[in-house]
Amino acid sequence: MKIALDAMGGDTAPETAVAGALRAARELPVELLLIGRQDAVERELARYQDRPANLSILHASEAIGMDEPPVSSVRKKKDASINVGMAVLREGKADAFVSAGNTGAMVCAAMLNLGLLSGVERPGIALTLPGLRGETLLIDVGANIEPKPSHLLQYALMGEAYARFVLERQRPRVGLLNVGQEESKGTDFHKETYGLLEAAGINFVGNVEGRDIFLGDYDVIVCDGFVGNVALKTAESLAYAIKEVLKRSYRMSPITRLGAWLSRDAFLALRKEIDYAEHGGAPLLGVNGVCIIAHGASSAKAIKNAIRVGYESARHDVNRHLVEEVQRYAHASPRS
Amino acid sequence: MKIALDAMGGDTAPETAVAGALRAARELPVELLLIGRQDAVERELARYQDRPANLSILHASEAIGMDEPPVSSVRKKKDASINVGMAVLREGKADAFVSAGNTGAMVCAAMLNLGLLSGVERPGIALTLPGLRGETLLIDVGANIEPKPSHLLQYALMGEAYARFVLERQRPRVGLLNVGQEESKGTDFHKETYGLLEAAGINFVGNVEGRDIFLGDYDVIVCDGFVGNVALKTAESLAYAIKEVLKRSYRMSPITRLGAWLSRDAFLALRKEIDYAEHGGAPLLGVNGVCIIAHGASSAKAIKNAIRVGYESARHDVNRHLVEEVQRYAHASPRS
Repeated sequence: MKIALDAMGGDTAPETAVAGALRAARELPVELLLIGRQDAVERELARYQDRPANLSILHASEAIGMDEPPVSSVRKKKDASINVGMAVLREGKADAFVSAGNTGAMVCAAMLNLGLLSGVERPGIALTLPGLRGETLLIDVGANIEPKPSHLLQYALMGEAYARFVLERQRPRVGLLNVGQEESKGTDFHKETYGLLEAAGINFVGNVEGRDIFLGDYDVIVCDGFVGNVALKTAESLAYAIKEVLKRSYRMSPITRLGAWLSRDAFLALRKEIDYAEHGGAPLLGVNGVCIIAHGASSAKAIKNAIRVGYESARHDVNRHLVEEVQRYAHASPRS
Repeated sequence: MKIALDAMGGDTAPETAVAGALRAARELPVELLLIGRQDAVERELARYQDRPANLSILHASEAIGMDEPPVSSVRKKKDASINVGMAVLREGKADAFVSAGNTGAMVCAAMLNLGLLSGVERPGIALTLPGLRGETLLIDVGANIEPKPSHLLQYALMGEAYARFVLERQRPRVGLLNVGQEESKGTDFHKETYGLLEAAGINFVGNVEGRDIFLGDYDVIVCDGFVGNVALKTAESLAYAIKEVLKRSYRMSPITRLGAWLSRDAFLALRKEIDYAEHGGAPLLGVNGVCIIAHGASSAKAIKNAIRVGYESARHDVNRHLVEEVQRYAHASPRS
């Protein structure tokens, strides 16, 4: 299994990407292909004592910055690490491509270089969020900010198949993110989507609310990319604020500091639970290749986990299952 | 100043509503009017040693449940506490009406009983959220789930006036909730709204993201009610999950428990910070009367704080300022 990693992607690239790749190369049964400027990557690698045999470099002369406009950058910078990664994937020289870089550029480059899976109308970003009673896959968190109901239907089908085959869930529970549980809630868009999901032949449990996202009672929650993106960043914001408050509070007195030290295990557990950046990358479902988008602020551990997500997706042949699920629906519900 | 409180509103009414009213009657310079079933309210009050002189009861024979359909309940149950509260407000027998009951019913009853402020197209719920560097007013969090750009413009104008006159902020910073900071981000709806806000004669700082909500760098963040509702409930969900994780963690060992005890001040600070239900109620801006919507799970302290929000809104004559702000815009930008 060969996984390509964008060495130039992320807020602290190539440093963190290289550190994550080294961890993945040691812990996972994969070949790693680091894509980026040869000199920059070599310089980073030189900081470590030895280089694993299952790690190699593929030179890409350009990189797309985190804040560059996605479409024009992908078109102009032909030799950007993200474009090179997609080409490697298209040519079958890697089984998955992972990047913590510009999300919009990843989506755009995947569409241009790989195209869509047969029968899929639009790709969606599926993020696994930690929850009290288990993890929940939220799709879409930002690839498609103005979807049609048919797009959300396909996100449900793909998310369900991903949960079944990659996350190995039995009969995944799929919910529609809405402002209330009753079927009548939401706009016409949500009501139409509700009808489609009900007839989709999946385990659709109805509307769920924002408050369900971190409970872990559902395997898949479907939403439009605008709402998913805001929900995600809101949670991120609150998690950050909480960490800051704790940090501040622990500077209050020597006693609280001693208390914090004694209870540090509890804090590590908390941090692990809320820091979903640590939980790895988000697959871009619907494109013809395994693309994993990691958080721009990913740590080395998060990069390694994103590589693991790519490995698991490729190992379970995820895209074959996605196509089968989308086709199953198309054949079961022929439309005029 | 007379504040009416829905004694039948909230998950644990009338118990919590009455407890909150008693605290408010003692701490705030207001007359309190408890609206609900006389016998039930009397029974609750009988549990306390003495009844403050500034607290009275107004009988309402019906109540609207938390999960009842808003529109039909408001129409059918003429003598529901929410309808009676609105009538009291309309007749000038109270300066504000506070309820922790059914949000949809509050919005509907306010529209039917009070109508809109002159020039206002749709009301919006404005919630003050705690943040690292200060509080932020998020509007709308669920009154209007499919607004037009002109509604968001009015939410900005009303939110700005509320921040200036009730929260006493100088030149409030107003942001538009979007999926990125660049002006080009979002759907056509967001781009059109951006243009309106830029020309609104307020201190519009551009697009903000979900991650800005809990930082406290903006005074007012404007969004559609669907997105606001999901963001709010997502944050609520995460805060709940974090509390649960901490509780669990503190059962890990006697050492961590001792640590937790020593560092309890830090925890109280954290809890206070994230538990926005404690921060009081959300004004329904745009209706012709001061209506405050409190969280259904409000504690007695939260009810008291919601009453305080009603008191502050009435004391600052908030609706006069809202009308002036909406009129100012209308005169500055005459539309065909």
